[in-house]
Amino acid sequence: MSASSHPHFSPELLQMARWLAGDFCNREQAWENPPFFAQIRVAYRPLPTPALSGIGFYVEQAYGGHLEDPYRQAVVELRQTRSGMVIRNYRPLEPERWRGCAREQPDRLRHLQVADITYLPGCDVHVQQQGSRFVGATEPGQKCCVVRKGQTTYLQTRIELSENQLSSHDQGMDPTTHEQVWGALAGAFRFQKITDWQSELPMISGI
Amino acid sequence: MSASSHPHFSPELLQMARWLAGDFCNREQAWENPPFFAQIRVAYRPLPTPALSGIGFYVEQAYGGHLEDPYRQAVVELRQTRSGMVIRNYRPLEPERWRGCAREQPDRLRHLQVADITYLPGCDVHVQQQGSRFVGATEPGQKCCVVRKGQTTYLQTRIELSENQLSSHDQGMDPTTHEQVWGALAGAFRFQKITDWQSELPMISGI
Repeated sequence: MSASSHPHFSPELLQMARWLAGDFCNREQAWENPPFFAQIRVAYRPLPTPALSGIGFYVEQAYGGHLEDPYRQAVVELRQTRSGMVIRNYRPLEPERWRGCAREQPDRLRHLQVADITYLPGCDVHVQQQGSRFVGATEPGQKCCVVRKGQTTYLQTRIELSENQLSSHDQGMDPTTHEQVWGALAGAFRFQKITDWQSELPMISGI
Repeated sequence: MSASSHPHFSPELLQMARWLAGDFCNREQAWENPPFFAQIRVAYRPLPTPALSGIGFYVEQAYGGHLEDPYRQAVVELRQTRSGMVIRNYRPLEPERWRGCAREQPDRLRHLQVADITYLPGCDVHVQQQGSRFVGATEPGQKCCVVRKGQTTYLQTRIELSENQLSSHDQGMDPTTHEQVWGALAGAFRFQKITDWQSELPMISGI
């Protein structure tokens, strides 16, 4: 499959995909602020097959010393829409089936199909290019529902992506008072890319 | 040396020393709140010799997966004063000399002398027994000066200690505005004791 067969992948969407494809760590942030930032690893592994119409990634997020036990597994899809770029979020129906696929066994992602994931409505992240970075935020509407410790909240995410850095800020808000219930009070996580997987993007590598 | 030779060590001070002597981890808190709490280990290793007139501990605090590289090394001393119990804080003059003494090589603490540490004025933690726990806070006066990233702040610490739990909350405050500049915005670290060293307390074991 060549890039020309994906006319809906704009140069900026492909740029975002290249920058996102990789394994990220916020080690510097943790060492600069002990003990107030956990050391986190987040991996965006390109999906090897076009299971989704956009550019798909399998995502694992884990504490630095516990990669084998991710606290978050997701599939995201970069899409170009008429109103701009969007990151769509999906949850795997059987997370344990995909555990380890971000780093140790990416080959198993060949088996991932649309039926294996469920779309999370209200959780699209709308992205804009601003100079040499991409900036995104959860779509308006306060509909990205997250139940945490029995409490219903809505998720507000902000991300910034540049060539080797990803920052993300998640906040869980009370749907009535709109006050923050959970999340990073200390601010965004600042990740540096430590492994680059852009060559695995099927629409770029031509594989 | 027997307990009777330390008439100034009240039963409550000895109780606090027993509960403090150990290695602590906040693993549960980290797993309950991913990714918003770093996993921290803090060790209070009893000093094997009476270098200080009170009950002394060598302290190392580190990120969970990086015990060999503690971001904080300290000596603390529990003392009974006329106005109550106090935790005095000291900084080692050559921290690298004592690195690893909290867990791997506690024997080397036999060489630690008063000349190896410097007292931190204004940083005493005043402690009261409240039921089955000890509660402490930095002494009034806003004099516990901490320079962090080039900014001068004063430290406010709150601790709670019970038989198997230690919670601590450090905040760095702006000396002019009294607003928080650094520290755990998300609240206290809640540690569980994972190794007990109370039998090493010289005034208790009689060694």
